[in-house]
Amino acid sequence: MSNSSPVKFDDPPVFPRGFRCTSTNCGLKPDAKDLALFVSEKDSSAAALFTRNHFPGAPVTLGRETIKAGRLRAIVANSKCSNVATGARGLENARRMAAAAAKEIGSTADRVLVSSTGVIGVQLAIEKIEHGMVGLAAQLQADPMVGAEGIMTTDTYPKALSARVGDATITWVAKGSGMVEPNMATMLAYIFTDAEFDAPALDRMLRQAVHVSFNMLSVDTDTSTSDTCAIMANGLAGRVDEKAFLETLTAGCIRMTETLARDGEGATHLLRAIVRGAASEDDARRIAKSLVNSPLIKTMVHGADPNVGRLLMAVGKAFEVNVRPGSTDAWINGHAVVKGGERLEFDEAAVRTALKSEVVDLEVMLGVGNASATAYGCDLTNGYIEENAAYYSS
Amino acid sequence: MSNSSPVKFDDPPVFPRGFRCTSTNCGLKPDAKDLALFVSEKDSSAAALFTRNHFPGAPVTLGRETIKAGRLRAIVANSKCSNVATGARGLENARRMAAAAAKEIGSTADRVLVSSTGVIGVQLAIEKIEHGMVGLAAQLQADPMVGAEGIMTTDTYPKALSARVGDATITWVAKGSGMVEPNMATMLAYIFTDAEFDAPALDRMLRQAVHVSFNMLSVDTDTSTSDTCAIMANGLAGRVDEKAFLETLTAGCIRMTETLARDGEGATHLLRAIVRGAASEDDARRIAKSLVNSPLIKTMVHGADPNVGRLLMAVGKAFEVNVRPGSTDAWINGHAVVKGGERLEFDEAAVRTALKSEVVDLEVMLGVGNASATAYGCDLTNGYIEENAAYYSS
Repeated sequence: MSNSSPVKFDDPPVFPRGFRCTSTNCGLKPDAKDLALFVSEKDSSAAALFTRNHFPGAPVTLGRETIKAGRLRAIVANSKCSNVATGARGLENARRMAAAAAKEIGSTADRVLVSSTGVIGVQLAIEKIEHGMVGLAAQLQADPMVGAEGIMTTDTYPKALSARVGDATITWVAKGSGMVEPNMATMLAYIFTDAEFDAPALDRMLRQAVHVSFNMLSVDTDTSTSDTCAIMANGLAGRVDEKAFLETLTAGCIRMTETLARDGEGATHLLRAIVRGAASEDDARRIAKSLVNSPLIKTMVHGADPNVGRLLMAVGKAFEVNVRPGSTDAWINGHAVVKGGERLEFDEAAVRTALKSEVVDLEVMLGVGNASATAYGCDLTNGYIEENAAYYSS
Repeated sequence: MSNSSPVKFDDPPVFPRGFRCTSTNCGLKPDAKDLALFVSEKDSSAAALFTRNHFPGAPVTLGRETIKAGRLRAIVANSKCSNVATGARGLENARRMAAAAAKEIGSTADRVLVSSTGVIGVQLAIEKIEHGMVGLAAQLQADPMVGAEGIMTTDTYPKALSARVGDATITWVAKGSGMVEPNMATMLAYIFTDAEFDAPALDRMLRQAVHVSFNMLSVDTDTSTSDTCAIMANGLAGRVDEKAFLETLTAGCIRMTETLARDGEGATHLLRAIVRGAASEDDARRIAKSLVNSPLIKTMVHGADPNVGRLLMAVGKAFEVNVRPGSTDAWINGHAVVKGGERLEFDEAAVRTALKSEVVDLEVMLGVGNASATAYGCDLTNGYIEENAAYYSS
């Protein structure tokens, strides 16, 4: 997949100093891993962003409380059951999950961030999680992919990245395949670093990075009740330049966003909508999101069908945005297809071939200002429908 | 399909006094009808609402000009090509289409409303339309279904309704299967009556009826560049009670909205989201739209999978709406599935059966106020994807 930034990512990804993880099957799923634990050897500064959905899961409610102190020692996450719409019992189960992890690693529950992902409206089998937690501390190891595997739901592969900033390392671990149009965070994205920052600095940088990355991702327009993006900085590498750190943090969040979009449920393409020349950043973001969210754009990309009029439809349906048809131009992977609001004559065979690329860039120049934005999505396929027509039952 | 109003519709539908129509194949499509003409024997009061998309088709641009006079004699519509994003030549072609229809029926171009629907960004083969128009006046006849057939694109059957108000008749003819989340109107919906009203009264009533019907319809969230809803009243039945007329007008628009939703591209269910107890009508409308637009709700209905947590997700992702989790209840075709923001224990087999009904009603009680709204949609199936992955090429 294309790399949209000059940042070099490690292959394979590694952890910063002092971070380790493990994952296991505790019985929520028949065989696959369903419980993951990420631990720092010392308490870390931390920040987190959560879903804006009105029905946050119990782990999100608890996480908002936990993160207030700006300190974390560990993150524990299960898949299969999201512990959402589960009332007081759900919240109690989230607290028990934090306590079980704390006991296992020799910390306290208020230093453990809990996440759960999976079906909504089913109570968590907390005894299985408590039982599965026993002995995990002895299994902690250095490969972030092992933790990434434990948080997968419909993801087709585990997702981790790492990159260097001065003497420090940043590592991203994430999952998110359906019910993904995050607002404040992606479904589950954890970022670990040995750089030294206090919690307010982490919070500020996390918000900036998420604004242009996870918050511009949409697989299916549906905003999860569990979205969580957290960062932990244990300081073992000392201070690094904040500007360089923010640049790398942002680049990794964008790269992870692209990875999540490409692995959207049923997806076969990464779709990027790059909007320039907007009157405001908000306008650019709305148009970019309108493009990646349009089922007709998504099916056009899926079928490699150069039905380019749909680009204008999707730009034009953002009623509240300042759009001037006569100044609107568009390109598909560099091929000019619209000029001044009219469809150009173009080489259809070449555009068909472009639409078959794994990464399809839809660029729109609005010609009314200087603001820009990029949104990240994927195509819409039968795979998405098959996955979601029987998610609960299967 | 269920009838949500006490209004009795004629079976089969008929035209009001003085209206006739015809349709033909003029060569835009290989064999199917692609040109339709609706004519009143005398000039009628008229009103129309058009798409809010920033890239309206040439017929919409011309239609806005034509409707200013509040007088129409005829409506002419072609399918296969929408004449959108076609520049000055497209507008000239729309004018030629109006002129050709006017010449054929002995009227003037400024009394003819033009619509085109189909692929965006392709010039209209105006000579075929002009040639096909010759002789249509002699073929005008009394069955509205004949006109409805001429405006179909991906619709699976022609759509017309009629009902009585006092001594007058109202007849609805519409099409709209994909790229349907109208704002101001559905794709193409024409309403004919022999009741006597002036143009301002028609405009006022049309806006009220469309607000709760076509503007609450979404097949796929994509707002067409061609949406047009027009009403013609030729007065041959004299005056009728305005309140009764508005009630019947609204009931027919809702019934036609349900018909369009049920025949959405690939659809196998009509999905209605009924929201009550909202703080404002706007809140109720947003939540209702959020429900019918959610791909995860749509696939849940398609698969008859009682993954009812998705109802809360879709309510909760309307960030700007006043939602109180503890007072939120939900039902699926009358089965209580959520109470106070928590999933209830319910009879899963019964809810599965309910989800297999042709009409699936999702009811949500927000418990924060007294406003309500209903939105109309459909399930999401492989049929939608197959239709739209090769719409341009096929």
